[in-house]
Amino acid sequence: MLDIEDIKCAHSRIRAFVHKTPILESEFLNNLSGAELFFKCENLQKTGAFKARGATNAVLSIPKDKICNGVATHSSGNHGAALAWAANLRNLVAHIVVPMNTNQVKRDAILNYGGKITECNANLRSREETLHQLVKHTGAYFVPPYDDEEVISGQGTTALEILEQVEDADIAIIPVGGGGLLSGCLLGFSGSPVVTYGVEPEGADDAYRSLHSGKRVIDHSPDTICDGLRTTLGRRNFPIIRDFVKDILLVSDKEVVDAMYLLWTRLKIIVEPSCATPLAGLLRNKSLFSGKRVVIVLTGGNVDLTDLPFK
Amino acid sequence: MLDIEDIKCAHSRIRAFVHKTPILESEFLNNLSGAELFFKCENLQKTGAFKARGATNAVLSIPKDKICNGVATHSSGNHGAALAWAANLRNLVAHIVVPMNTNQVKRDAILNYGGKITECNANLRSREETLHQLVKHTGAYFVPPYDDEEVISGQGTTALEILEQVEDADIAIIPVGGGGLLSGCLLGFSGSPVVTYGVEPEGADDAYRSLHSGKRVIDHSPDTICDGLRTTLGRRNFPIIRDFVKDILLVSDKEVVDAMYLLWTRLKIIVEPSCATPLAGLLRNKSLFSGKRVVIVLTGGNVDLTDLPFK
Repeated sequence: MLDIEDIKCAHSRIRAFVHKTPILESEFLNNLSGAELFFKCENLQKTGAFKARGATNAVLSIPKDKICNGVATHSSGNHGAALAWAANLRNLVAHIVVPMNTNQVKRDAILNYGGKITECNANLRSREETLHQLVKHTGAYFVPPYDDEEVISGQGTTALEILEQVEDADIAIIPVGGGGLLSGCLLGFSGSPVVTYGVEPEGADDAYRSLHSGKRVIDHSPDTICDGLRTTLGRRNFPIIRDFVKDILLVSDKEVVDAMYLLWTRLKIIVEPSCATPLAGLLRNKSLFSGKRVVIVLTGGNVDLTDLPFK
Repeated sequence: MLDIEDIKCAHSRIRAFVHKTPILESEFLNNLSGAELFFKCENLQKTGAFKARGATNAVLSIPKDKICNGVATHSSGNHGAALAWAANLRNLVAHIVVPMNTNQVKRDAILNYGGKITECNANLRSREETLHQLVKHTGAYFVPPYDDEEVISGQGTTALEILEQVEDADIAIIPVGGGGLLSGCLLGFSGSPVVTYGVEPEGADDAYRSLHSGKRVIDHSPDTICDGLRTTLGRRNFPIIRDFVKDILLVSDKEVVDAMYLLWTRLKIIVEPSCATPLAGLLRNKSLFSGKRVVIVLTGGNVDLTDLPFK
C-alpha cells in the first residue's frame, strides 16, 4: 500500500527533471469566489501537463534489464506526450496508443517528443487490447496512464510542492479522470491539514458515482468537452480516493467553458477544458469555500488554438 | 537625471502592491533559438501588464495636496487600465483618454477597475489635446504613460527583479513603444553586466530611426498589429535609450504573430502581439544571441480571445 514516503521518494527522483511550477493569484477571482485562491500551474509543467511528473517517476524507476525494448502506453494525449518526453531521459523508444478522436495538438506533441503513435477506438477496451498487442509485439514496458504505483507517486509530488509554496492552505480542488493526480495528491497531503475535493464533469461522473455507491464504476460512456477526463477511475486509485477525499464535485460543460474563459482572461494563461473544472466546481459551490485558502490545481494547457470554445 | 537609486526607491515603494512575476523556461525554445532563454512574465503582472509598476509608483508618489481631483492619462489601453487599477490604492478617480481604435478588452479592463473613459482620435496630437482639456476641466493630476520620471522608475523595477531571479544573465531584450519600460530597465541594469536590446515593429520604427539618426523622431504614422507599440518615443526616454541601449532590433508583423504562437503553445501563456516582439527579434537575429543567457521581457497579455491572429 502506497503512502507519503513513496511520494517523497518520487519527489527526490524527479525534481531535477521537472519544473517546480509557480503559484498564481488573482484579486478578481478572489473577489468573485469569496475565497483566497492559489493556482498551482501544472499547465506550465514540462510537456504542458502534470503528467510529466508520473511519467518521469515511472521511467526512472524501471529496472535496467526491463527497458531494452522501450516503453508503451495508451493515452488520450497528455500522458502519451509526457511518456514520449520522459523516455528521452533514458534514450528509450516510446510507443503510444491514442484513441482516434485525440486532437491534433496532442498527437503532434507525442510525435515532437519522438513518440511512435498507434491508433485505436475511443473506448477503454480498444485502448487496452491495442496496447496488449503492441506490448506483445515489441516487448516494450507498459507504463499505465494512472493505475500504477510509480505514476501515482509521481503525480503526488504536486501536493508536496503546494505544501512548500502555499502557507496554511485549507483546501485543494483537483480534477479526477483516472484518478492518478487526485490519489497521489491525497497521499501527498496526508498528515497535513489540507482537505481535498475532487471534481469531474457531469458527463464523466464515474468517480462521483463510485464514491457515493462505494463500488468502482467501470462501465460508462463519457460525454464531455474535458478530453483529459474521459477515462475510467483506476483500480489502485479508487480505494485511496474513497478513503481520503472529502467529496467529489460535479460541473457542467458550460460551467467548464465559463471557468476556462476566466482563467484565460484573468490569469493570462492557457488551460485546457479539463483544467478548468476545479474553478468551475468552486464557483458552483461557493459556500463550501467561503473565506478559505483554496489551492486550485491547474492540470494542463494543451489545446488547439484554432478550435477554441469561446464565442 | 534619473539613475539606479530612483529605480531602487520605486521598488521599495511598489513591491507590496505588485506581483514579483515568475520566470519561465522552455527546452523547445532554447533548442529553437540556440540560446538559453528566461521569460520574465509581466503578462502575469497585476492588470496583465508591466504598466502596473509605473502607474503604482506614480500614484504613490503624488503629493497629498495634488490628488483631490483624481488622476488622468491617455493610453492605448494597458497604461489606462493600470492607472485605473492603481488609483484605487488611494481611492482616487481615474480619467482615461483612449483612442477610438482601442480594443474592447482593453476598454473593459479600464471600466472594470473603475476608470472613466473619454474617447479621442488615434494620433498623439488628439490624445494630448483631449487630455489637456480633461485635466483643465476636472483638475485631475496627469500621469503620463511613459514620458515621466516616476513611471520610468516604476517600470525599471522589472530589471531589479530580473537580476534577483536570473543568475548571470548576459542579455535582455525589451519592446520599445514610448520607451518607458526600456529606459527604466536600462537604468535598472546599470552597473550589471547585462547588455540590453530594444525591439520594435517595422511599422512603428521611430525608436530605431531615432537611435540611428541621433535625433528623436516624433512625426510618424504607426502601422502594426502591436497595438501597445504604436506610441511615439518619449522626450525623457530617448536620451536614456540613446546612451545605454546596445541596439534596437526590428521585426515584421508576420514574425510577431509567429513568435506569439510559439509563446502561446510552448509556454502556455497568453501574450499580446507587442509582447511577442522580443522573441521575434531574437529568432530573426539568432547569431547575436547564440549560446547566451537571454532574458526576454514579456510585457502584457491583454488580447481579445474572439479575434486572434492564428489561422
